[in-house]
Amino acid sequence: MTLNPARLAPMANAIRALSMDAVQAANSGHPGMPMGMADVATVLFSKYLKFDPKAPDWPDRDRFVLSAGHGSMLIYSLLYLTGYERPTIQDIANFRQIGSPCAGHPENFLLDGVECTTGPLGQGLAMAVGMAIAERHLNAAHGADVVDHDTWVVAGDGCLMEGVNHEAIGLAGHLGLGRLKVLWDSNRITIDGSTDLSTCEDIPARYRASGWHVLACDGHDFADIDRALGEAAALTDKPVLVECRTVIGKGAPNKQGTSGVHGAALGADEVAAARAELGWSAAPFEVPAEILSDWRETGQRGAKARAEWEQRTSGKDLGVVPVPEGALDDYIAGLLAEPKKVATRKASEMALEVLTAAIPSMIGGSADLTGSNNTKTKATLPLTAQDYSGRYLYYGIREFGMACAMNGMALHGGVIPYGGTFLIFSDYCRNAVRLSALQQTRAIYVFTHDSIGLGEDGPTHQPVEQLMSLRLVPNLNVFRPCDTIETAECWALALADTDTPSVLALSRQNLPQLRTEGGNLSAKGAYRLRAAKADRKVILIATGSEVEVAVATADALEADGIGADVISMPCMELFEAQHQSYKDDLLPNVPPEQLLRVSIEAGSTMGWERYTMANGLQIGLDRFGASAPAEDLFAKFGFTAEAIVPKIKARLGI
Amino acid sequence: MTLNPARLAPMANAIRALSMDAVQAANSGHPGMPMGMADVATVLFSKYLKFDPKAPDWPDRDRFVLSAGHGSMLIYSLLYLTGYERPTIQDIANFRQIGSPCAGHPENFLLDGVECTTGPLGQGLAMAVGMAIAERHLNAAHGADVVDHDTWVVAGDGCLMEGVNHEAIGLAGHLGLGRLKVLWDSNRITIDGSTDLSTCEDIPARYRASGWHVLACDGHDFADIDRALGEAAALTDKPVLVECRTVIGKGAPNKQGTSGVHGAALGADEVAAARAELGWSAAPFEVPAEILSDWRETGQRGAKARAEWEQRTSGKDLGVVPVPEGALDDYIAGLLAEPKKVATRKASEMALEVLTAAIPSMIGGSADLTGSNNTKTKATLPLTAQDYSGRYLYYGIREFGMACAMNGMALHGGVIPYGGTFLIFSDYCRNAVRLSALQQTRAIYVFTHDSIGLGEDGPTHQPVEQLMSLRLVPNLNVFRPCDTIETAECWALALADTDTPSVLALSRQNLPQLRTEGGNLSAKGAYRLRAAKADRKVILIATGSEVEVAVATADALEADGIGADVISMPCMELFEAQHQSYKDDLLPNVPPEQLLRVSIEAGSTMGWERYTMANGLQIGLDRFGASAPAEDLFAKFGFTAEAIVPKIKARLGI
Repeated sequence: MTLNPARLAPMANAIRALSMDAVQAANSGHPGMPMGMADVATVLFSKYLKFDPKAPDWPDRDRFVLSAGHGSMLIYSLLYLTGYERPTIQDIANFRQIGSPCAGHPENFLLDGVECTTGPLGQGLAMAVGMAIAERHLNAAHGADVVDHDTWVVAGDGCLMEGVNHEAIGLAGHLGLGRLKVLWDSNRITIDGSTDLSTCEDIPARYRASGWHVLACDGHDFADIDRALGEAAALTDKPVLVECRTVIGKGAPNKQGTSGVHGAALGADEVAAARAELGWSAAPFEVPAEILSDWRETGQRGAKARAEWEQRTSGKDLGVVPVPEGALDDYIAGLLAEPKKVATRKASEMALEVLTAAIPSMIGGSADLTGSNNTKTKATLPLTAQDYSGRYLYYGIREFGMACAMNGMALHGGVIPYGGTFLIFSDYCRNAVRLSALQQTRAIYVFTHDSIGLGEDGPTHQPVEQLMSLRLVPNLNVFRPCDTIETAECWALALADTDTPSVLALSRQNLPQLRTEGGNLSAKGAYRLRAAKADRKVILIATGSEVEVAVATADALEADGIGADVISMPCMELFEAQHQSYKDDLLPNVPPEQLLRVSIEAGSTMGWERYTMANGLQIGLDRFGASAPAEDLFAKFGFTAEAIVPKIKARLGI
Repeated sequence: MTLNPARLAPMANAIRALSMDAVQAANSGHPGMPMGMADVATVLFSKYLKFDPKAPDWPDRDRFVLSAGHGSMLIYSLLYLTGYERPTIQDIANFRQIGSPCAGHPENFLLDGVECTTGPLGQGLAMAVGMAIAERHLNAAHGADVVDHDTWVVAGDGCLMEGVNHEAIGLAGHLGLGRLKVLWDSNRITIDGSTDLSTCEDIPARYRASGWHVLACDGHDFADIDRALGEAAALTDKPVLVECRTVIGKGAPNKQGTSGVHGAALGADEVAAARAELGWSAAPFEVPAEILSDWRETGQRGAKARAEWEQRTSGKDLGVVPVPEGALDDYIAGLLAEPKKVATRKASEMALEVLTAAIPSMIGGSADLTGSNNTKTKATLPLTAQDYSGRYLYYGIREFGMACAMNGMALHGGVIPYGGTFLIFSDYCRNAVRLSALQQTRAIYVFTHDSIGLGEDGPTHQPVEQLMSLRLVPNLNVFRPCDTIETAECWALALADTDTPSVLALSRQNLPQLRTEGGNLSAKGAYRLRAAKADRKVILIATGSEVEVAVATADALEADGIGADVISMPCMELFEAQHQSYKDDLLPNVPPEQLLRVSIEAGSTMGWERYTMANGLQIGLDRFGASAPAEDLFAKFGFTAEAIVPKIKARLGI
């Protein structure tokens, strides 16, 4: 297919005009990037990208990721022009206003065609790596007739400067993801000014060092763009970076090429000047019929391929992965019959052995802590450049890159990613966990070594605030199971929720099996593990490894005639979602003077007042830990019945 | 000076023996790295490193950073052998036990000679970049007679694979930090096995692409090590990476070169085999006198240079930077006389104009958001490779690298670093903020755009959980001032606390000046901004931009005869530290039924129960934000007096 530059230029200018108009109307936004990349995007969408606006969920579509998400008007323009149902031109006119799907940054949950939520720099490209992994894996599993597509990325200088870029491209290069094509909007401008202010890096050399092909083109010469994209499309042995040399804000005669055009409306005068420069005389938010017609024709390019795919595959749906119910029932029955005292990270591995055998779409991995996170199972052989059919990723020491890749895999569909690191290093990938939640992906984080219980490695490795701080993230289920049974239950819950990511916080140290009955009690988030025998004076609320401590504390109190319930609370978020009557049954609304509530968790106490009430007792850790064997630390920091019972008695005035 | 390999080998083996013994005694730890790098470290400490164990705080000492902190026995051995006061051999024998300064990972607050806390991979090298920046800056400011030293780093494959490495070396290369020398322990082994499992990267090519020199040596050939380190020392125009090709666990005949030697005790048999292999027959924790004597001699190398430096400079102390008291008094008086309605980020800039003019040791910067973070002042000219005397760093889009560099600068001493990004991107540098707190550095984070008040950029850019989650970090003061006066007060508090890092959470949007009196009221963390006029029924507690909302709410309640106090709480941590009587005065211990406590903060509600009590009212945001103008979002999410007053009245039964 030969492109006609005479028709392409007005098509690209339509992107520029819509971008200028929308940002101007909102008096807020980023016109520079869409105007700079309009020519490249026009070639990509006119000739190379495989997509069908009438079937945005077509599983074998190429994925297009706008990693430089601030340039959101680029994709909104493209979706409108190529004929997606939304955004409408009214949506675009309402850019950045309440109710418009054209948000400041592209949100995958607001618009079809937006494959992922971008804006936090670097993560779009890193998620694209995950999409490209999922594609190759599914290709290996189902054949090229079913899965055979590219992942195209538009990334800016900012995406490439972020640390996560190093992790992402190292992983992509190592896995030889030849279907991944990154178009680098090389305009050499960042918010502070020229990139010369902050970097001297030879970016192509770095990409080559990571196992990538590197091409270049003049990002405003249609023939040259066509050549470079053609070459990029043809290279499939390694991922490809195409340096598209562009002028930021191209078309705005007085502001282009400066940081002034990056993140603010051009202003009425400059918009007028740009319209004159571009020869664009249509009213704001109007695209002349002929130009729109050219775009809509472009949007129909993929319909035939899509129809053929439908016919060939009988419309196979690789997107939503069903999880068989009750996959763990026999396993749990076995545990009830024969209890096991193991670390919950080991209990997780035991559950995973069953789950990964039953659910072929689960893809595991770890950021270089496989043996510590207990994430590898017999069913999950390595996924490598030589064999994409594997189901286990050695992510390397790349926590952030791993989490982004997991998001990309989950968004691609067809696979369920889980991946491990130490809970403390959730800090390294925290914004990706947040994007899991915002994007409503089923990414499952296996965060082990979840407290001072990890022992000798000391304060740099001992999470204190991480548990509670992850609970603050909206739409994220944070599970902290106390034994083998709860761990299995939490895995079942994590897999069952397709729109909410999960964190499993797991112990390094062995824990006794406390549960003696089945039924997924963790599903309610908290439940009464032990009821008071003596007259109830105390409610102990604990999670994970401290449930054992709570049980010992209850035993000691009961021995003194003080009745104490033990509530295990593996998931606050699920507990919050319960009916008030259930909550009131577990935690009656009685002042602490009459029924003392005590939380026990080896982490920050802040937040626990929600359950203990202000005058309750919070046993926790509001300082950094220390280096010593775990049992010494539990004693030092007061997580023993011996230390807790006197505090409770003091409060009870006994 | 010529090195004698015949004497070096036993010296290196002393490191190996101590490392094996300590890990074996603890039955926990990482012998592989110290054994692998023993030869390189012996050459470095015997000939190149400028240090004096008798004066560990000598400002012009070379800095030695063990970025691969898990190999902590390397530095503990070196400190003991060269003659530091601590660790003693008993400390080493108590490796990883309670009370020993020889913690699992090196902690700067436990031992002199440990320049920074390492273990979280990648950050040691990134902090070393900050140290090297501080060194060049102080050299430019005070001359080479006073400041003229190198920063040496030992980093492993893990440090180099982390994303932050990309940010750190890009910054170092751009700034031409030729006094920074990184010794890469290239053993090609990570925890999961060979590096081939997860990476194919050409690391030297990547470093060259970032503007570094790259050298190599056989890490077990003393002459070759000496050559490479000599070359590295002589190269001063660019930072230097030396690839030291080593065998992990060198000396353990059956386990060396495998991941099995990375993170576990060798076991008695392998220790015995290693002793045989190394010809080491001394008892555990014993170093033969002749070898110890050679080491101690090495430790005396620097005494002369240090004495000359003392004489030359009259013992100039560049470490602790005093902050003049009352630097902002006139400025605050001016504001009280002439109130200003500006965003607190702008108020921060106004305070910084005064402070940076008065305190030459303040070095500012931003991760490519200078104009948005308002971090640049007239006094802070750019610090560049051409002019290190500048005081402003264009960090580029490198939040994590920036935060690490700030830690390194603060640890180096002589400068007070502050740096900005959006509050949401605290997620990107979260673990470095944690290390600021753990290491007790005076790093000051300017986190602007601190709520949905940032408006149109939408949920990816709107912090929700970040504020509360930062408050969970031990030893971190999180300030959220409500107006110009509080902003100035919080800056004064941040500067005054030399052992605690600070976060300043600042608004994008304009806020009225609410304070009408002076005195640093923020110093108590919270204070009564307005006292109820009518009979007090309500206490409103708010922070930052929501204090304005609280005042409006109080006005509306008072108009209906409902008395309401307004408490401004710019810093929870400082409030927690107040005497109980002060706390009880602000927040009397009366049930909410009699005196309703209401928190108002545009972020997570969890944690606020500490102050509202369980039956109080928390006005907050427990979901992701949205893209729209700020005022629309405040209305949508109920942060207006109109929305809050009815909720309060409902609780009061009015």
